[in-house]
Amino acid sequence: MKFNKVLQDIKTYEAGKPIELVVRDFGIDAKDVVKLASNENPIGTSPSVQQTIIENASRAHLYPDDSMYALKDALSKKYSVANENIIIGAGSDQVLEFISRSLLDDSSSVLMTAVTFAMYEIYAKQMGAKIIRTASYAHKYDELMEAYRLRKPKIIYICTPNNPTGDAMRRDELIKFIEDVDKNTFIVVDGAYMEYAAAKDKAYEVTPQSLLKYENVIYLGTFSKAYGLGGMRVGYGIAQSDIIAELYKMRPPFNISTLSLAAALSACQDENFVKQSTALHKEQIVRYEQFAREHDLQYIESYTNFITYVLDDTRDSTDISDGLLRKGVIVRNLASYNMNALRITVGTKEQNDVFFKYFSEEIS
Amino acid sequence: MKFNKVLQDIKTYEAGKPIELVVRDFGIDAKDVVKLASNENPIGTSPSVQQTIIENASRAHLYPDDSMYALKDALSKKYSVANENIIIGAGSDQVLEFISRSLLDDSSSVLMTAVTFAMYEIYAKQMGAKIIRTASYAHKYDELMEAYRLRKPKIIYICTPNNPTGDAMRRDELIKFIEDVDKNTFIVVDGAYMEYAAAKDKAYEVTPQSLLKYENVIYLGTFSKAYGLGGMRVGYGIAQSDIIAELYKMRPPFNISTLSLAAALSACQDENFVKQSTALHKEQIVRYEQFAREHDLQYIESYTNFITYVLDDTRDSTDISDGLLRKGVIVRNLASYNMNALRITVGTKEQNDVFFKYFSEEIS
Repeated sequence: MKFNKVLQDIKTYEAGKPIELVVRDFGIDAKDVVKLASNENPIGTSPSVQQTIIENASRAHLYPDDSMYALKDALSKKYSVANENIIIGAGSDQVLEFISRSLLDDSSSVLMTAVTFAMYEIYAKQMGAKIIRTASYAHKYDELMEAYRLRKPKIIYICTPNNPTGDAMRRDELIKFIEDVDKNTFIVVDGAYMEYAAAKDKAYEVTPQSLLKYENVIYLGTFSKAYGLGGMRVGYGIAQSDIIAELYKMRPPFNISTLSLAAALSACQDENFVKQSTALHKEQIVRYEQFAREHDLQYIESYTNFITYVLDDTRDSTDISDGLLRKGVIVRNLASYNMNALRITVGTKEQNDVFFKYFSEEIS
Repeated sequence: MKFNKVLQDIKTYEAGKPIELVVRDFGIDAKDVVKLASNENPIGTSPSVQQTIIENASRAHLYPDDSMYALKDALSKKYSVANENIIIGAGSDQVLEFISRSLLDDSSSVLMTAVTFAMYEIYAKQMGAKIIRTASYAHKYDELMEAYRLRKPKIIYICTPNNPTGDAMRRDELIKFIEDVDKNTFIVVDGAYMEYAAAKDKAYEVTPQSLLKYENVIYLGTFSKAYGLGGMRVGYGIAQSDIIAELYKMRPPFNISTLSLAAALSACQDENFVKQSTALHKEQIVRYEQFAREHDLQYIESYTNFITYVLDDTRDSTDISDGLLRKGVIVRNLASYNMNALRITVGTKEQNDVFFKYFSEEIS
């Protein structure tokens, strides 16, 4: 079979290693595995969401309401936007896919920072588009503006807070950037970790509603992080209605499962869980910062639910993450992003205790 | 924003109307709505699957095992194929999307029958491909072969049994067709309803394993119908490993949710539920055939879990389906397929009683 040419250049996404793999490969009991690799919510699944799932278990044979009326309604109230400003995807990932597929072709290019969410590149390459990167992982106005002016990308990705590094762009700087870019360039503001930035420093909080006035901007959010639904695959894009209508043409029917839809609706109404999540995070991330200072390790100031330790030349992130893995601790090695660094999800007190114990052994 | 040209020609899929809509629009209590529109399993969700969902409710925050090791293992045993012959999609729908995106461009064409699964056309048009249709809804060797020879399509879709009409292609005829097509033409054998055909007449049963020897063929199956997981969105493609490897490049990470993966694994191990489903269906479809004969209605011999009534000129499928809807009975009007016909999922005894009662009123 002759497959499309673009496939030759596609590398697949390397997911965080699942607990099942550590159980299979290292014979460690599942309950002893500490997974701090995928930025899952360490509190777990909200009890009210669990209850919703249990109540809906007998509805697994029924297709979901493909209009997603109830969830859109809840999101529209939450963010003070209209239903027709919202598209729901299987993770905000899928909205990224819709964007890529409806805007890119093999003559276009996309702009992103040196180290940012891997799927921007993968979805763009699936369309044959060219990838342009700034020099820094951080979203610096000057670097982004220079690359934009020189290279005229079709899409600019602003991941704020940024994954997998944890830094963020100040709101005022983001707004200035958006206003300095022409209206035929599409700007994606990916706020997957926004709840953590908002809880840390209001100067970094960007709301979807505040971006609705721009005809070339979409805001992406997700239930996977602060809302604790990483396994359910529900995210959303918020933009002017004509943009949403175009993206809808790439949406497959029933892209959100019956249980995911019910779970997301329930999570959307459980703001208290988000407060708990950000409170635990604030309390625990201080320990990571302190540990780094005590051990003379460099870290990136984090606006997310994870922290990135940048290692010096005397240490190797692959050796360390492999060593941790054998002890049942899974973190994300950033070697594949060309960084000698580890991204660690800030866990519960107990999970972090285990991490510090084994990590101390690895670096000593 | 300037969106891609292909978007101009895309119509979105019209899903069966959900129960929620009838509740909202007609004020009918949800428990009184009889939905026979989306070929959902009338028995409901298997009790063992419900149990699995309940047990996994607390894992909704955890990303799924993206290797899908356990589910692939179960499928490989079930169908006597290797793990690397399998790709799992969010419904077999998503595998159709991968196929379209990895094989088609705006210079290619695809071949299908006059009336068949709507997503073949939608996914092909998303790639700018041209649609070729035979004259009949049924999969007739001669019509397909003539169109293939004349038009040289890149993909040929064989939906057997066919949705939304219910007819099927005999296995010997399918195999002859496959063997008469050149190896650069890709053939999709969509067996979403195969369990019902197999239970009705072995001459129509096609197994994925029997097609593995063809380098240009993929078999699609789903958990949505006989396995009762329409709401969970899990299907699969089975083909030679090099085809699967190419399709994998278009697969987004975590395309199956944690609960869907667990539910599908559980369903895969519950063959008894499938037997129950096909047994109930056999018992009840006889009533639809008999009703049609008694009321001088034409129907298409069905190899699926639904039956299609083809109306004569004195009746209008839109009037009848609208009338049924107001009484809380949802069936699928095939007017959008240019057929004056209704597709009715064969339900439980009680659901079918309600259907016959109101349908009799509509046609009298």
